[in-house]
Amino acid sequence: MATLQDIANKLGISKGTVSKALNGASDISESMQKTILETAVELGYTKTRGKKNNKKKLCILIENMDYEEPHHFGYELILGFRQMAEPAGYLVDVVPATPELQKSMPYDVFMLQNHYLGAFVLGFSLSDPWMNDFYRSHTPTVLYDNYIISNPNIAYVGIDNQEGMELAVSHLKELGHEKIGYLSNELGAHIMQVRHKAFFQAMRKHGLEAESNCAGSSYYITQCIENHLSKFLNMGITAIVCSHDLIANAAMIQCQQLGYHVPDDISIVGFDDLPICAHTSPPMTTIRQDRIQIGKSGYYALQSLMNHVSIGTLLLHAKLIIRESTKKVRK
Amino acid sequence: MATLQDIANKLGISKGTVSKALNGASDISESMQKTILETAVELGYTKTRGKKNNKKKLCILIENMDYEEPHHFGYELILGFRQMAEPAGYLVDVVPATPELQKSMPYDVFMLQNHYLGAFVLGFSLSDPWMNDFYRSHTPTVLYDNYIISNPNIAYVGIDNQEGMELAVSHLKELGHEKIGYLSNELGAHIMQVRHKAFFQAMRKHGLEAESNCAGSSYYITQCIENHLSKFLNMGITAIVCSHDLIANAAMIQCQQLGYHVPDDISIVGFDDLPICAHTSPPMTTIRQDRIQIGKSGYYALQSLMNHVSIGTLLLHAKLIIRESTKKVRK
Repeated sequence: MATLQDIANKLGISKGTVSKALNGASDISESMQKTILETAVELGYTKTRGKKNNKKKLCILIENMDYEEPHHFGYELILGFRQMAEPAGYLVDVVPATPELQKSMPYDVFMLQNHYLGAFVLGFSLSDPWMNDFYRSHTPTVLYDNYIISNPNIAYVGIDNQEGMELAVSHLKELGHEKIGYLSNELGAHIMQVRHKAFFQAMRKHGLEAESNCAGSSYYITQCIENHLSKFLNMGITAIVCSHDLIANAAMIQCQQLGYHVPDDISIVGFDDLPICAHTSPPMTTIRQDRIQIGKSGYYALQSLMNHVSIGTLLLHAKLIIRESTKKVRK
Repeated sequence: MATLQDIANKLGISKGTVSKALNGASDISESMQKTILETAVELGYTKTRGKKNNKKKLCILIENMDYEEPHHFGYELILGFRQMAEPAGYLVDVVPATPELQKSMPYDVFMLQNHYLGAFVLGFSLSDPWMNDFYRSHTPTVLYDNYIISNPNIAYVGIDNQEGMELAVSHLKELGHEKIGYLSNELGAHIMQVRHKAFFQAMRKHGLEAESNCAGSSYYITQCIENHLSKFLNMGITAIVCSHDLIANAAMIQCQQLGYHVPDDISIVGFDDLPICAHTSPPMTTIRQDRIQIGKSGYYALQSLMNHVSIGTLLLHAKLIIRESTKKVRK
């Protein structure tokens, strides 16, 4: 790994100036700070400990995800991470990673400038600018539901979506369903691609037919329902697996508006087990991801990366939660 | 979880007798001990702490794998596990899980009878009797290179074989190879199935043709070489990926005996990075699995399961180690 001296040598300045710049001293000009930071990143320099007398700092970068309230998706992810990191002596900042921030500087520069030793990254889609930076980043970084191949500094944590889809499809098959449809968010997020693929794998594994016209995806939930649901019902589909609980909820409501009874006429399975699932009408059968556990595992994976144990993928078991939106197929 | 009282109630005996039996007291008859153990297992009872004044015990169950000497495959897996477990206060037994032992009693009975809180399982093939027990086991158990779906007490650790195959194939493609063969151990082990599938996925991803006659597998290495290697060479294959370093080494030797130069005429890639790879002729390009890190991750996953964080899969990054058995294809 590059040292302060390496950076100093490269720029022909003193080690003291480099150290001051990296610690944000006010007597180093802004342009010199920028040059030093960029050179540090180019050489692969990373912080290995916090500043003297200061707490070691980690950050949670969050984008496209609500987290402020207990019922928000990101809330427990952050809580689980903090429950592990803070007792271990880390200060954890939660930082909204807006597109503006991501475009303003490379990822490693941001991390170095802010003295973060590592990050837990939530909610990024494949089009987020920093997703490209992760392929070559030198900063220990754990991505929730995103995967970067072959960079020993980056890990992926989440639940096992393949196992989740397998549980959903095998539950429906046990209930006698054979014509099963799949409704999904647009495939612009890694995890939506994984679930989409996993659905078809699970269908094939169970010897069920799955033509591509059994799956529909759209950016907006309302569009998704509008474009695909009536078609599914006309095709004689008796059960629908959804990539997300909110799509499943919208599908249940729309089925009922079209005069179909859930689950007597059609069974519906969600994915995620959001708090809403216990309160939908009817209460929703879904696949649970335990977000506190994911947060804790995110911290563990980050700690491993910081200790040079290069975890690539850490998946928690998915769990089928059977409620009342699924039922034996009507013969 | 079942308590001592539950077991006592079920059998109509006192809680004291149950406790004595589970602690192996000599004044309980052997047949009563057996009945109590089996009932405990049936009810899902597991130890949550060691006996008073005794160290907490874990075990490493090992089968089909050498581990006594530093150059043996299992040696560092065990070392890495112990490096984490022993400082944390655990006593770690290494137990050969012979077919006789596995047939003599169910897995959970064995664990309970020996006061083990959890196990790290190495070298099991799909035909090992306890592999079936793992689907319903109540004992926290981490399997190296084996996967059990949907049991929250069982985790799988290993390297990311898909990433490894991807690195091998993309390395060969960069060197201009297009006709690539695959030599494998018989597909009776989970990990051999995973690598086989991953090879074809990687080929497709890179737009390379991979007919099923480009892959060969046999139980014995010598058979594997005999049955498939000449055929590959006659088909005009210019590079071979192997499921294991020892197959790659045998293939290199046989190619040379048939008058082919490695790597001028044919490139060969191994898998695992055994110590031998640095000393083969020529030194072998291969995919590294860091066995100390796998051992450490095995302990971590086990500790998580014991704390009810249900890790399903933990994969370490694979790493391509380029030595001298691969070279640009000759035009």
